[in-house]
Amino acid sequence: MSRISVLGLGAMGAALAATLIRKGHSVTVWNRTAARAEPLASAGATIAATPAEAVAASDLTILCVVDYAAAGAVVAEAQDALRGRDLVNLTNGTPREAKKLAAWAEEKGAAYLDGGIMAIPPMIGEAGALILYSGTDALFERHKPSLDALAESRYLGDDTGLAALYDLALLSGMYGLFSGFLHAGALVASSGRRVGDFLPLLLPWIEAMSGTLPDLADKIDNGLHDRSVVSSLAMQAIALENIAKASTEQGVAPDFIEPMLRLAARRIAEGHGSGDISGVIEVIRRKK
Amino acid sequence: MSRISVLGLGAMGAALAATLIRKGHSVTVWNRTAARAEPLASAGATIAATPAEAVAASDLTILCVVDYAAAGAVVAEAQDALRGRDLVNLTNGTPREAKKLAAWAEEKGAAYLDGGIMAIPPMIGEAGALILYSGTDALFERHKPSLDALAESRYLGDDTGLAALYDLALLSGMYGLFSGFLHAGALVASSGRRVGDFLPLLLPWIEAMSGTLPDLADKIDNGLHDRSVVSSLAMQAIALENIAKASTEQGVAPDFIEPMLRLAARRIAEGHGSGDISGVIEVIRRKK
Ligand SMILES: NC(=O)c1ccc[n+]([C@@H]2O[C@H](COP(=O)([O-])OP(=O)(O)OC[C@H]3O[C@@H](n4cnc5c(N)ncnc54)[C@H](OP(=O)(O)O)[C@@H]3O)[C@@H](O)[C@H]2O)c1
Ligand SMILES: NC(=O)c1ccc[n+]([C@@H]2O[C@H](COP(=O)([O-])OP(=O)(O)OC[C@H]3O[C@@H](n4cnc5c(N)ncnc54)[C@H](OP(=O)(O)O)[C@@H]3O)[C@@H](O)[C@H]2O)c1
Repeated sequence: MSRISVLGLGAMGAALAATLIRKGHSVTVWNRTAARAEPLASAGATIAATPAEAVAASDLTILCVVDYAAAGAVVAEAQDALRGRDLVNLTNGTPREAKKLAAWAEEKGAAYLDGGIMAIPPMIGEAGALILYSGTDALFERHKPSLDALAESRYLGDDTGLAALYDLALLSGMYGLFSGFLHAGALVASSGRRVGDFLPLLLPWIEAMSGTLPDLADKIDNGLHDRSVVSSLAMQAIALENIAKASTEQGVAPDFIEPMLRLAARRIAEGHGSGDISGVIEVIRRKK
Repeated sequence: MSRISVLGLGAMGAALAATLIRKGHSVTVWNRTAARAEPLASAGATIAATPAEAVAASDLTILCVVDYAAAGAVVAEAQDALRGRDLVNLTNGTPREAKKLAAWAEEKGAAYLDGGIMAIPPMIGEAGALILYSGTDALFERHKPSLDALAESRYLGDDTGLAALYDLALLSGMYGLFSGFLHAGALVASSGRRVGDFLPLLLPWIEAMSGTLPDLADKIDNGLHDRSVVSSLAMQAIALENIAKASTEQGVAPDFIEPMLRLAARRIAEGHGSGDISGVIEVIRRKK
C-alpha cells in the first residue's frame, strides 16, 4: 500500500481521502480550514500542518481544491518540498491552466499529472466513477494501482491539457442535458403536471435521441452535414420556433432554447436549410 | 382494415401513408404539390384531387404538414367535407394552436384528436416510434388499432393541448442534448481529435447523468432545491466558468453554455449558491 497525501478536503477531496484510507493506503491530509481534516483523522489519516509537510510525507500528492487560483496558492506553499515528488492535480480548470501549473511544478522538480473527475463525491471508489488523466505517463504508470482505488482511470496521453479539455467537454454535454431537462420541466410544470411523472417519457426519448449522435459525429468529422439528411434544419427550425412560442404562451422564459433557435437560423441563412443539425457546429467553431 | 386519408406528403406524411399501405389499410392521399403523391400511388394509394375529396373518401383523415398556417389552409379547403369525420392532426405546433384548430374542426362537425410524433420518418411503423395524443377520447378509441400501425400510441387525456406541450417539452430535452453535444464536439474538434472517438466517453456519461434527473425532478416537484445537495450550484458555477474560459481559449463560441452560466449566477445571487441546479428552473419559470 502507498503513502499518499491529499491537499484540499472539500466535498471531493474528503471523498478521495476517505476512499484511499478505506482501501488501505497510508494517507496524510491537509486543508486550509483545519477543522475539515478531523473526521479523516478519526478514520486513520495523519494531519499535516502545512502543504509542504503533506507533500514531504508521501511519494504521491493529490491536489483537489475549488479552482486554479486556490491550487496555485496551495502548491506555492509547498514548493520547497516538491523536488522528486509526484503531483496529481484533480482541480477543475482549463487546458491552459493545467499546462501552466504543469510547467511550474516541473520547474520545481516535481512530476505532474493532470486529471478530471467524472463523478460526484459519493461515487468515488464505486462502480461508474471515471477519472481522466493526461500528462507524465511514467507518473501515471507508477501510481495507477493507487489511482484505480478512486475510479476507473483513463490515461489520454502526454498532452497535459487534454484531460481538462475532455472533462469540460463532458460537462458541456451534461449541462446541455440539464438545460434541456430544465426547459422541458418548466413546460410540464406550467401545465400543472409533475416533472417526475414526465420522466418515463423523457428518459427513453433522451436515450433514443442519444442514438442519433454517432451519425451527427460522423457528419462533423467528415464535414458532410448536408448528405443523407432525415430531419432538415429548416423543418427543425420550425419546431424550435414552436418551442419558443409555446414557452411564451406557458410563461416559461426561452433562455435555454434560444441559442439553438438563433444558431440554426444563422446556419439556414448561410444556405444549409436542407442540411443536418450537425452543421450548426460550424457556426460556433468560428472565432467571434 | 380501415379507410384512411393522409393530407400532406412531406418526409413525415409520406412515411405515415406508406406505413398504412404496407400494413394493409385502404389509403387515400393528397399533397399540395401533386408529384409527391406518385410514389404512393404506385404503392397502392388512391390520389385525391383536393383535400375535400380526400376527407370524403375515408372515416379517418390524418393531417401532417409543415406548420399550423399550412394545416389551417389545407383543412379550410376541406371544410364542407368534415361533418361527421374524424380528424387527427400530427402537425407540430403549440398547445394554443392545437386547441384553436380543434375548436374550428368541431364547429365544422368533425371530431378532433391532436398528436405529436416522437420519431423520425424511417422509424414510423418500427419499434421505438411513439406518438402522443390528446383530445377526443372516443376518436382515439375508435382508431387506436389503425394508429398503432404507425407507432406506439400514448393517449394523454382530453386536454387537447397536452400532446403538443409534451411533444415540445420532449423536443426541448432533445435540443438541450444536441446543444451540449455540439458544444462538446466543438471543444474536442478544436484539439484536432475526432468527435466520433469521443463518443465512447460521452455516451455513457450522458447515460450516467440522466440517472440524476429523477432526483432533480423530485426537487422541482417539491420545491426543495436546497436539501441533500451533492454538487452545489456555487461549485458548478465555477465549472461553467471554466467551460466558457476554455471555449474562448479553444476558439469555440460560448453560445450554448451561456444560458446556464448566466441563469446559475442569477440563482446564486438570489441566495441559493449552496442549493442544487434544479433551482435554476425557478429563474426561467417567472414571466419576464
Ligand atoms: N463536488 C462535486 O460534485 C465534484 C465533481 C467533480 C469534480 N469536482 C471538482 O473537485 C474540485 C473540488 O470541489 P469540491 O466539491 O471539493 O469543492 P468544495 O466542497 O467547495 O471545497 C473547496 C475546497 O477548496 C479549498 N479552497 C478554496 N479556496 C482555497 C484557497 N484559497 N486556498 C486553499 N484552499 C482553498 C477549500 O478549503 P476550505 O475548507 O478552507 O474552504 C476546500 O477544501 C473542484 O475543482 C470541482 O470542480 C467536484
Ligand atoms: N421529419 C421529421 O423528422 C419529423 C419528426 C417528427 C415530427 N415531424 C413533423 O411532421 C410535420 C411535417 O414534417 P415533414 O418532415 O413532413 O416536413 P416536409 O418534408 O418539409 O414537408 C412539408 C409538407 O407540408 C406541406 N405544405 C407546406 N406548406 C403548405 C401549404 N401552405 N399548404 C399545403 N401544404 C403545405 C408540403 O407540401 P408541398 O410538398 O406542396 O411543399 C409538404 O407536404 C411537421 O410538423 C414536423 O414537425 C417531422
